[in-house]
Amino acid sequence: MASEIPITVCVDAMGGDDAPEVVVEGVKLALGKDEGLQVLLAGQEQVVVPLSGADERVIPLICSEVIEMDEHPAAAVRAKRDSSIVVGCKAVKSGRAQGFFSAGSTGACLAAATLNIGRIRGIRRPALASVIPTPTHPVILCDLGANVDCKPEDLLQFGQMARIYAQIVLGKDLPSVALINNGTEETKGSQLTQETYRLMEGSLPGFVGNAEGGDVFAGAHDVFVTDGFTGNVLLKTLEGSTKGVFRLLRDIIHSSLKTKVAGALLQSELRRLLTTFTADAQGAAPLLGVSSEVFVGHGSSNAEAIANGIDQTVQAVRRGLAAQIAAVATAPTKG
Amino acid sequence: MASEIPITVCVDAMGGDDAPEVVVEGVKLALGKDEGLQVLLAGQEQVVVPLSGADERVIPLICSEVIEMDEHPAAAVRAKRDSSIVVGCKAVKSGRAQGFFSAGSTGACLAAATLNIGRIRGIRRPALASVIPTPTHPVILCDLGANVDCKPEDLLQFGQMARIYAQIVLGKDLPSVALINNGTEETKGSQLTQETYRLMEGSLPGFVGNAEGGDVFAGAHDVFVTDGFTGNVLLKTLEGSTKGVFRLLRDIIHSSLKTKVAGALLQSELRRLLTTFTADAQGAAPLLGVSSEVFVGHGSSNAEAIANGIDQTVQAVRRGLAAQIAAVATAPTKG
Repeated sequence: MASEIPITVCVDAMGGDDAPEVVVEGVKLALGKDEGLQVLLAGQEQVVVPLSGADERVIPLICSEVIEMDEHPAAAVRAKRDSSIVVGCKAVKSGRAQGFFSAGSTGACLAAATLNIGRIRGIRRPALASVIPTPTHPVILCDLGANVDCKPEDLLQFGQMARIYAQIVLGKDLPSVALINNGTEETKGSQLTQETYRLMEGSLPGFVGNAEGGDVFAGAHDVFVTDGFTGNVLLKTLEGSTKGVFRLLRDIIHSSLKTKVAGALLQSELRRLLTTFTADAQGAAPLLGVSSEVFVGHGSSNAEAIANGIDQTVQAVRRGLAAQIAAVATAPTKG
Repeated sequence: MASEIPITVCVDAMGGDDAPEVVVEGVKLALGKDEGLQVLLAGQEQVVVPLSGADERVIPLICSEVIEMDEHPAAAVRAKRDSSIVVGCKAVKSGRAQGFFSAGSTGACLAAATLNIGRIRGIRRPALASVIPTPTHPVILCDLGANVDCKPEDLLQFGQMARIYAQIVLGKDLPSVALINNGTEETKGSQLTQETYRLMEGSLPGFVGNAEGGDVFAGAHDVFVTDGFTGNVLLKTLEGSTKGVFRLLRDIIHSSLKTKVAGALLQSELRRLLTTFTADAQGAAPLLGVSSEVFVGHGSSNAEAIANGIDQTVQAVRRGLAAQIAAVATAPTKG
């Protein structure tokens, strides 16, 4: 059914810690899973031409430059006009592909997408969102670091965009949206969050008020909105502490014969937990507010994570994520 | 030795979710552990008089009012002049006690301590610090929520004060101090953290640069400095996700006979982990920058946590925490 509508996604062959090898593997996996997928593969000739020769659904998009993870994003995008990220975004703008996926520099993708694909009319600043697994149900956190210094109007738009993304990926008609704050009471907060609270209260459907950092992993609400600085710190803290506890547990299990026996008895359940709470399974984060669907994957993505990221891009294109955001952004009144 | 120098700590009998009962129990525990401790117990007559009758090292400080957890801190402190928090802080100011401990409202303690005990000369704003357990070694996080909107100069002072607290409680001569940021690179950050980085680089001994949220639980450095908004979100996220994973693990262990057997084999190790990573064991957070030692415990403190909090206050008084901060704050040059 849905998988039969043909979609072309431009994939950055050069992005990620283990690029281009894992990207090539990921593209193969993604093509195997979705018959309606075509991949416009952006990267150096020796990478993209062999794969396009082997699979007719891969179209090579040859470019000579690569933006490295540690380069200054905006400067790199300006300087490296023949990089896979810049060329890829331009291909989306020109209509050769409907969406873009990269596991490269998030900052460079943001800069290249904003510059070359453009913002949705009415959107002040694109934001990065991500699906976070929790023990009860997945939740959305936005912004994750695209905008470190924000105004209340920015946060309101992050909430409007993230709730549309939540409707699409969580399948909920009216997702609950909470504002990350240093306390749940209405009177709590920084200048930014107090003003944002007042804005959201009047104009954001599903707004349920403030939430604390611990509410994210508890799955207390569907969408959590925050500035990109706090969102980055929150996400890194959450990932670091969950992984840290799993590591402690592994060390305990490895510590004696008795505990190794216990580990063997728990093996299948622990593996399921680990799979649920590791980054690879989560895939990619959309840049909400860009005129076409752009997704950024973890730099540490393996082939499966790349394939998941490409699939997320395809699903977002099919469900019209950017078009739905555009409809809300240009609406004259309530979001 | 050290425990024989007599110290009087004023304890808020009315502070905490289960006050006054657990506070009374906690005071008894603390007195049993430290022969040099005297407690000035601030609270309602029917609470403080019986205990002072039973133990000559407890001096009653009768006051009629109680500040509740959900009251607006500054307003409550102004309105309730005969509350245990206000009366307790005044007793410290007048010299009847050397330090103050409460498991009540953090905001009210901050307001009452700032107003009635006063700031150390040269300190812009008192800050809340806490010892966070990690798999490798305890670390300090500051500020935890006392100051939600900060300037770079505030963060610099938080770093100066927290490193003195780290010297005392972690026993390290030159603790490493990192700035929480949305990336480790020097160029990363909000306007606030970028300016703070430049300030700290020149004048904060032990400064090692930026750290990400995940570095806290990883124990990557000794002291982590941030504004109170981010610190609160970080701490709540860390506590929420570690407790969440422990809860998942408990559910797994309870799910079948096989996993229950595994749980029994892991019991002692898991109990040790839980003890290390639960709030009760961590005790209290000092208000750094106040002229005397003031510690605030979790509202959910049990009797043992109360006793730990009182003991932390005593130790900080004995080691001259406030005096050491004063020496740095009024120093003409480098902190």
